Amino acid sequence: MAPGTIQPDIVAALERIVGADNVVRHRAERMVYECDAFTLVRNPPELVLLPRRTEHVAQAVRLLAENKIPFVPRGAGTGLAGGTVSPPGAVMIGLNRLTRIRRIDLRNRFAEVEAGVVNLKLNNQLAPHGYQFAPDPSSQMACTIGGNTATNAGGPHTLKYGVTVNHVLGLELVMPDGEVVRTGDASGGSAGLDLTGLIVGGEGTLGIVTAVTVRLTRLPQAVRTALAVFETVDDATQSVADITATGIVPAAMEMMDSGVIEAVEAAFHIGLPLDAGAVLLIEVDGHEAGIERQMRSAAEICRKNHARDVRIAKDEQERLKIWKARKRAAGAFGRLTTSYCTQDGVVPRSQLPDMLREIAEIAKRHGVRIANLVHAGDGNIHPIVMFDERDAQLVRRALDASGDILRACIRRGGTITGEHGVGVEKIEYMPLLFTADELAHMLTIRKVFNPAELCNPYKIFPDSKGCWEIQKPGKRVIV
Amino acid sequence: MAPGTIQPDIVAALERIVGADNVVRHRAERMVYECDAFTLVRNPPELVLLPRRTEHVAQAVRLLAENKIPFVPRGAGTGLAGGTVSPPGAVMIGLNRLTRIRRIDLRNRFAEVEAGVVNLKLNNQLAPHGYQFAPDPSSQMACTIGGNTATNAGGPHTLKYGVTVNHVLGLELVMPDGEVVRTGDASGGSAGLDLTGLIVGGEGTLGIVTAVTVRLTRLPQAVRTALAVFETVDDATQSVADITATGIVPAAMEMMDSGVIEAVEAAFHIGLPLDAGAVLLIEVDGHEAGIERQMRSAAEICRKNHARDVRIAKDEQERLKIWKARKRAAGAFGRLTTSYCTQDGVVPRSQLPDMLREIAEIAKRHGVRIANLVHAGDGNIHPIVMFDERDAQLVRRALDASGDILRACIRRGGTITGEHGVGVEKIEYMPLLFTADELAHMLTIRKVFNPAELCNPYKIFPDSKGCWEIQKPGKRVIV
Repeated sequence: MAPGTIQPDIVAALERIVGADNVVRHRAERMVYECDAFTLVRNPPELVLLPRRTEHVAQAVRLLAENKIPFVPRGAGTGLAGGTVSPPGAVMIGLNRLTRIRRIDLRNRFAEVEAGVVNLKLNNQLAPHGYQFAPDPSSQMACTIGGNTATNAGGPHTLKYGVTVNHVLGLELVMPDGEVVRTGDASGGSAGLDLTGLIVGGEGTLGIVTAVTVRLTRLPQAVRTALAVFETVDDATQSVADITATGIVPAAMEMMDSGVIEAVEAAFHIGLPLDAGAVLLIEVDGHEAGIERQMRSAAEICRKNHARDVRIAKDEQERLKIWKARKRAAGAFGRLTTSYCTQDGVVPRSQLPDMLREIAEIAKRHGVRIANLVHAGDGNIHPIVMFDERDAQLVRRALDASGDILRACIRRGGTITGEHGVGVEKIEYMPLLFTADELAHMLTIRKVFNPAELCNPYKIFPDSKGCWEIQKPGKRVIV
Repeated sequence: MAPGTIQPDIVAALERIVGADNVVRHRAERMVYECDAFTLVRNPPELVLLPRRTEHVAQAVRLLAENKIPFVPRGAGTGLAGGTVSPPGAVMIGLNRLTRIRRIDLRNRFAEVEAGVVNLKLNNQLAPHGYQFAPDPSSQMACTIGGNTATNAGGPHTLKYGVTVNHVLGLELVMPDGEVVRTGDASGGSAGLDLTGLIVGGEGTLGIVTAVTVRLTRLPQAVRTALAVFETVDDATQSVADITATGIVPAAMEMMDSGVIEAVEAAFHIGLPLDAGAVLLIEVDGHEAGIERQMRSAAEICRKNHARDVRIAKDEQERLKIWKARKRAAGAFGRLTTSYCTQDGVVPRSQLPDMLREIAEIAKRHGVRIANLVHAGDGNIHPIVMFDERDAQLVRRALDASGDILRACIRRGGTITGEHGVGVEKIEYMPLLFTADELAHMLTIRKVFNPAELCNPYKIFPDSKGCWEIQKPGKRVIV
């Protein structure tokens, strides 16, 4: 129940700024904020502020900066790379009480929303008018627009609609010294340097985003969704290649391998065939005219590639059932394993079959179970590495397998994250992807925004300030 | 015929680096490089280098940087904002002999091309395989991929496909000190800070892009194009609003007002009705299935909005004829006026009718003729301001009218460039769009790349180094 190590007079001043009701002091409550969905690195913040207004964020940041106290912004904590874990002595600034939708302008297709607005809540508000904010991470029931912006989040529909940066027009940002600036504008103009694009994906290390002006996209008039069942992963990936080659741009092409099928069936009994090598979810959307024919030609291609079964959803209920299998797939692993880590790598599309074979070899070599969820259209793989957090040996092997997967992605001309970010989890792989010079350039640019490195320190880059040693079970990681 | 003011030993060293055949020394030849398509600001470079290899660019830049000689990169010189004009004492580095297409990977949908590759040449190479590099500025017959990257160029199809930054995966960049770095990768991954996105649109002030890895897009299976003739601009813009509201995403929606119709008819005799208030070019593309129905519903909407005539192209020949009117529209003004300036502003779509009315008032107030080419789907206007360069009075009025248009765009929540960039032309308007703090942040970031400000100095921002006075006829402009 003890409060953290921040000086009492500073705690009192912060309480005056954000209101005592919006401060979490006690240790038991602060433990809630010790990690995000990457659970291997944990550390509770010394204090948690939950401000309700941008000015309060700015005033709190100014006070913290003046007192050289590091601070860490956080949305819903659904991140998968430890981007919101607190280093020792840090104050957390939770944005989840900044929940106003400030403006929706349907005619000009933009909305200005505060950072704590939940993705699905915004979309539920837009849907009756026929619009959407397109990025749809699997966590969209909980994750915030601010978090989507920090990680440049994707989702299954990235294939057609692009990632978050393609849907952000402007930002309201509290700089690491407390100054409030605005970048971009609702017209999507591009005079000067594109600071908006630089801050999106900056994982909260360039400042704290308090509001986002997002582009609104028309909801498609018509949608068709199908599930194709294949004997082998190769047949499924060949179908993906053949469908895109015809000129169809599906809204989503999501592959689940046999390991994922098993987990989903154990958890939800949806009726997926346990003996299949892979299933492929295909969605096409657009104008009513012709959508049916696009779906039929995609289904035809799957059959030519030896699909055992292609089921096109007859109605919205069937469609939602197919999506449920995909959207809840990661969560389904709770039944099969005590702990798991959802990896995130990218390879050129043509390398998918080989990469999936290599992942099977890596799993065998390290004696861990790995199942694969794949955004097959853009070569973004999510290997789910299973382990038991209580067994240091097994954790060690799971981390080694993850490392081998990421190194294989780099070797194949891909990269170590498609949408989750680097956080603390992947810092050690950054020197494999970038030269020392390239990393130095990025760090220099970050210091333009964040010279004292108080704002979300020890994230993304091997840090110039020195080392913060994180104890991953079975492995000491220096970040 | 005299060479410029660069020291003879430095000229000799530069000749050794790039080869004497690739150096332009004589004044008469250097005059060709005195301006781009924004002809009001001219100054010949002291020397022009036309290197054929990245290493030569790097070595030349290193030598120039060591000798504190400013340098200016240039593609085809089709820019419309003076982004490639040389300040006094500068050496120009023309990239148009870097013309290799290094790699085309159709399966993974990317190509790596050198900066001097002409946009249309790349597209002609890709088309037989069914692919394209989507950005299509009206100058695509001449402009280079490097220039497209520098200005973050758009084009009529921006409405559906986005601007250049959406199609650039990675860059090879010669830093202002001569170091060669690479950003991004072919997989489109996003670890670390997005330097690629920052450099695209940087107008050559962050370094010299020598090669670009571009995303390849499938050519649409089917295309339909129509030309609708309206009595008034309002009816045309209302049609644009109604078409997008149905959920159709046209590939292009281009409006030409009566002034443009007059110019096009005078030049090309295409058969546009001289008494119409506006014509609207509508293109839909995509999968064969249903494209016909989308075109028919767009045409129906135009008729409901009192279109006098809607002509859907029956074949490719008719389609190209419609596009010829649009693509060559700016060039058509050569028959009507001795000089003209193609402006570039953006307003929220809903403000288009009011903005076009305000432009008519501005024209009247300053006694200049202005015609309007409009990317109507995204609110990007190109008012063509006509004048006579030999009449200082008229030039003055044309510049004042341009200024009023840009200020009106800002007042209406828009911006001062959609795709042409800031160059030297619009520096004076940047303080209206950004606060002093915001400009200072951008300049600080630029200095991370370009600390000595030798690389394309005096562009985009009111400069920290002092002033270079440009004599625009009838107006002294301090940049």
